[in-house]
Amino acid sequence: MKAAILGFGTVGSGVWKVLTENQDQIQRYLGEPVETAYVLDLRTFGDHPVSRVLTREIDDIVNDPQVDAVIECMGGLHPAYEFVHKALSAGKCVATSNKALVAAYGAELMRTAADHQTDFFFEASVCGGIPVLRTIRHSLAQEKILSVEGVFNGTTNYILSRMEQGLSYDAALAEAQVKGYAERDPEADVEGIDSCRKLAIIASMISGHTVHYEDIPTVGISHVTAAQIDAAKAEGKKIRLIARVTICGHEVDAKVGPEAVAQDHPLAQVKDVYNAVLIHGNMVGDILLQGQGAGSEATASAVVSDVLVALNDRKRKIFEPVCWTDQV
Amino acid sequence: MKAAILGFGTVGSGVWKVLTENQDQIQRYLGEPVETAYVLDLRTFGDHPVSRVLTREIDDIVNDPQVDAVIECMGGLHPAYEFVHKALSAGKCVATSNKALVAAYGAELMRTAADHQTDFFFEASVCGGIPVLRTIRHSLAQEKILSVEGVFNGTTNYILSRMEQGLSYDAALAEAQVKGYAERDPEADVEGIDSCRKLAIIASMISGHTVHYEDIPTVGISHVTAAQIDAAKAEGKKIRLIARVTICGHEVDAKVGPEAVAQDHPLAQVKDVYNAVLIHGNMVGDILLQGQGAGSEATASAVVSDVLVALNDRKRKIFEPVCWTDQV
Repeated sequence: MKAAILGFGTVGSGVWKVLTENQDQIQRYLGEPVETAYVLDLRTFGDHPVSRVLTREIDDIVNDPQVDAVIECMGGLHPAYEFVHKALSAGKCVATSNKALVAAYGAELMRTAADHQTDFFFEASVCGGIPVLRTIRHSLAQEKILSVEGVFNGTTNYILSRMEQGLSYDAALAEAQVKGYAERDPEADVEGIDSCRKLAIIASMISGHTVHYEDIPTVGISHVTAAQIDAAKAEGKKIRLIARVTICGHEVDAKVGPEAVAQDHPLAQVKDVYNAVLIHGNMVGDILLQGQGAGSEATASAVVSDVLVALNDRKRKIFEPVCWTDQV
Repeated sequence: MKAAILGFGTVGSGVWKVLTENQDQIQRYLGEPVETAYVLDLRTFGDHPVSRVLTREIDDIVNDPQVDAVIECMGGLHPAYEFVHKALSAGKCVATSNKALVAAYGAELMRTAADHQTDFFFEASVCGGIPVLRTIRHSLAQEKILSVEGVFNGTTNYILSRMEQGLSYDAALAEAQVKGYAERDPEADVEGIDSCRKLAIIASMISGHTVHYEDIPTVGISHVTAAQIDAAKAEGKKIRLIARVTICGHEVDAKVGPEAVAQDHPLAQVKDVYNAVLIHGNMVGDILLQGQGAGSEATASAVVSDVLVALNDRKRKIFEPVCWTDQV
């Protein structure tokens, strides 16, 4: 089967690596190899093997009937939205790590996929390598999900962890930037926007209708002070940036903000850039999922898991129904 | 769709409860309700509604063409094996929580299921409500799994936790028995046999061939002393009953035994009767899954998740291939 990768940045190059180095595992699951037939990027990559399959034209990919799966790793809303829409409309299955895309256009793109009897998957858009969405959707399908809460952003968790060790907010942020954990413009992370988008996706999946990320009250960590961290410590607590959605009947209550959490609470024990998700179901009780919420290979791993499940569906001529719709 | 529950004990009554109380969630996933058409048990249950569907004859169930799914919650090898074999041979899909059955007959029963184009699932047989097997099989299909380790037994974890607080082994065991965490004959738990069977199932799934539980070196906790616990504590460690399988090429190395683990290690932080599973993949890094490893409702939840996925497969006339075989 043949795949195309859109965007050869951090995640896209990770996808290339997973598809290349883990071919044995992929063949064991699918019964056949997956070939990377195209990589779409405007840049050039010298004598890297990716150069042999490089294209600048999305139409090369969507018009090639041999392409089964399109893997969107460009980030941003445009042209990611247009490219994914084109690919789905051409009957390709699509996997993406793009949380902004899913938070903004998830319902519409799932509808487009279902209309063309194919899959649109986005496990990697929420907490990188942690299998949150498939767990909620399949392993917990029988559960009344009462709440999902977690540490959804590694950058802020790293900064808060370093502030606990005595650094100021500015010094911790600067260190995170040096280590590559924070971007030069850190706003999306430190102001909670990244966590908010992930929470919107989870809340939409649980409730069955779009929860707009603009409607989720969101506070980041840029105003957390050393004094607040010390006060929490004096009470045996740690400050964490918590994203939480609770469901009560048809009420969906979601918010993002810093909270003081008891030191022995699982969410207080999340270290450095790790993410954790705590799901509370009415029968199963608490389930904690923890792992790398970002990073090239961990995120790529989740993207490729989506590709494998989607390609396996494609071989059997089945597809998954939409997870949520824009109707309330 | 119609289901039959074999055995109305701790897990079976939990399955009845999940199927009854969470019908809304089940209908949302499957698009139709699941009716419990039979419960097989030799006992009687007075005016409990289960009495209306009670039978003592497995043939009532396997010969009823309207029964889609058989849910085995009897425990033990016989007649569980014969009943499951009959059900699969009649084309029913089967879900079980019975780790002894899967550890002993897993490969054969999956083969029987595949021969009859149906599913044999057993998520609940490993760590109760924690979605370990589906995560390994689908969400991590693209990974080279390097190791899986964990605290797979809540009874022993409770006893070790209480010993840390100063109780002797005998006092902690007696307390666990009073609380219903340990059985009157605690051997299977305290000697590591329960952990060993779960590890055998995980090791078989990862390696693709049967790992016999009798071949796994297994030490329990009955010889752990207060002095050992204190010595570990002095080094900043906790003693945990660790089950671990590591994979290196075609080598599968599995063992169960008490180990001193650093206090800030995720497996040291598993509390009371909880279970935790730490999976290490070559791309995704560490993934930690934690939750209730036993108990009526948590285990039943995992059984019902299998039933839903199997019934969804049945509706679409698909089934999953075998996870492992007896051939090496």
